Amino acid sequence: MQYVHGGDIYNYKEYDKILDFSTNINPFGASENVIAAAQSALKEIHHYPDNKCRALVRKIADYLELPEPYILCGNGAADLIFSYVLAEKPKKALVTAPTFSEYEQALRTVECDVRHAYLYTKDDFEVNENILLNLTSDLDVVFLCSPNNPTGKKIPKNLLMQILEKCVKYQIRLILDECFYEFLENPKESTMQTEVKNCSQLVILRAFTKMHAIPGLRLGYILCSDNSLLERMQRVRQPWSVSTVAQAAGLAAIEDEERVEKTRQYITKERKRMELELESIGISYIKSDANYILIYYEEKVSLYEKLLKKNILIRDCQNYIGLKKGYYRIAIKREEENNRLLTALREEVRKWQNLL
Amino acid sequence: MQYVHGGDIYNYKEYDKILDFSTNINPFGASENVIAAAQSALKEIHHYPDNKCRALVRKIADYLELPEPYILCGNGAADLIFSYVLAEKPKKALVTAPTFSEYEQALRTVECDVRHAYLYTKDDFEVNENILLNLTSDLDVVFLCSPNNPTGKKIPKNLLMQILEKCVKYQIRLILDECFYEFLENPKESTMQTEVKNCSQLVILRAFTKMHAIPGLRLGYILCSDNSLLERMQRVRQPWSVSTVAQAAGLAAIEDEERVEKTRQYITKERKRMELELESIGISYIKSDANYILIYYEEKVSLYEKLLKKNILIRDCQNYIGLKKGYYRIAIKREEENNRLLTALREEVRKWQNLL
Repeated sequence: MQYVHGGDIYNYKEYDKILDFSTNINPFGASENVIAAAQSALKEIHHYPDNKCRALVRKIADYLELPEPYILCGNGAADLIFSYVLAEKPKKALVTAPTFSEYEQALRTVECDVRHAYLYTKDDFEVNENILLNLTSDLDVVFLCSPNNPTGKKIPKNLLMQILEKCVKYQIRLILDECFYEFLENPKESTMQTEVKNCSQLVILRAFTKMHAIPGLRLGYILCSDNSLLERMQRVRQPWSVSTVAQAAGLAAIEDEERVEKTRQYITKERKRMELELESIGISYIKSDANYILIYYEEKVSLYEKLLKKNILIRDCQNYIGLKKGYYRIAIKREEENNRLLTALREEVRKWQNLL
Repeated sequence: MQYVHGGDIYNYKEYDKILDFSTNINPFGASENVIAAAQSALKEIHHYPDNKCRALVRKIADYLELPEPYILCGNGAADLIFSYVLAEKPKKALVTAPTFSEYEQALRTVECDVRHAYLYTKDDFEVNENILLNLTSDLDVVFLCSPNNPTGKKIPKNLLMQILEKCVKYQIRLILDECFYEFLENPKESTMQTEVKNCSQLVILRAFTKMHAIPGLRLGYILCSDNSLLERMQRVRQPWSVSTVAQAAGLAAIEDEERVEKTRQYITKERKRMELELESIGISYIKSDANYILIYYEEKVSLYEKLLKKNILIRDCQNYIGLKKGYYRIAIKREEENNRLLTALREEVRKWQNLL
């Protein structure tokens, strides 16, 4: 089976030499805190993990000021997408195009009919009021991602409220993927977290993967007040999906509030700088709200291949439904790393222009 | 949802004081080797795991002398049971009763009709030739477990060969769970591993969980020469189900051959000793081939509760289909731990007998 995601560094012989811009992970890595907690948990691996993630659920609940029964942890957010789909077996779904491909991949496992709400270059790939017209009564579920992957665009809160209202009216489940929300400049203004209490249709998807830089450990969770859904999700998967080490890492990660704030500020600053640089280089980009930028450059240049020769890995986005050859996603990393990427991009663009 | 397995120590306040005989894990814990490898892998958790588990698959293939494409790793063997079921969506299945409950749990997620082949006390719960009569052409899959959980009984190789033959004839998928096979006195004589090459109907399920004592890390794999099944199994789950840490631990575990051999000898010796002791105490048991023993004692005594008061956790087996109140599974642990259990059992039996 073809792998269609970023981060497949293992494909390359000397992968420790590769500068990976293809995944959107906090460039400062996992915190010492988190590593220490994971390390300490290794003493407990001869026990089965707590199948209910009791301590972690309690801590997330405290932190988010939500009741514990609203929270379900999973082996990464992707695991929860598949569990949701299997638990509810939706017949008709709406997903935007482009967006994270695993929604559709999961929906296909239950032969769900997937409709695409296309996002357009002319709108900067923004989800706008047009989405409301797509929310028809025949739908069982809609997947939205804010900020959207790979476009980096958040969905404005007032639009999300309108979407939710329509979902309630038509009894459509709204799965809102907020896996990157912590990178937003003002995450609290954008999250729909408080709506979970008021509306059992809403499922918010979160991960420790991105901001806490632990994709290798696998940890995500959902927020939802529909207890029967959460029960069913547990019935369609093994009891021990979240490892002891991931649970311990999650507990420690929640303590890292200050680090998260600093990372957010750093990323915001670097994003703005990179956007200006891209402009000066002459590469089109979609103005981003997140820790990655969707760029576009002349198809013939094959930026992906060119950069790989320089040991820089970016995400070729031509396999996203709704995108085409020439689109790439680049992560925002540390200043010196970003400079390496920008220099390489500048070189390639110059070379191409000299050819013309 | 009710949790129906052993090892739920987290239910108890002072769980570090509990002596856990409810899970069947190598009593010597994870090896230093494995812990060191896991620890070292923590340096890599800011990368996504290798979605193909390339290095681990290569090593398992080498070790078992099987081609790499026959191997698929999962987030514990339980994860692979669910992936198999979702990939193949069998309509009619046969499982023995009693056996590991997750087969049926997984089959229910795709509304599969599950038939039980009951095993009887009079046969010591052995899977015998009667199973062949149960293999009818309407079946899509049969799940067998050897040695069986919770009975500890292995299925004789010549019977397994007859079962496989009938499965081939009727195109029934045979899922053979060998998660405890390394605890058998002569594992090589009992495994069906070499048959994988000859027969694409056969799927062998294995785990690092038990012998390598890493249930908290989650790592299992299957052996199967039906490449199209393995492809489909990858399509119905997230790409990154096996964590970086689990992959590293697995690589190290395969090096522990000598430790495995020593553990096997130790467990075999202790098992024989415990069976004699149980006899002298006056507790019925099923003669076991594995690292656990199914025992039975007078229902009214409630051994589970009685032992829990002494901080000893055993597996109450009354919720297994095919068993009833009074059945318990006890793990075989280290000599001194086993002695604590045996002493406690002796006390409870004496107390009961004095009451009569």
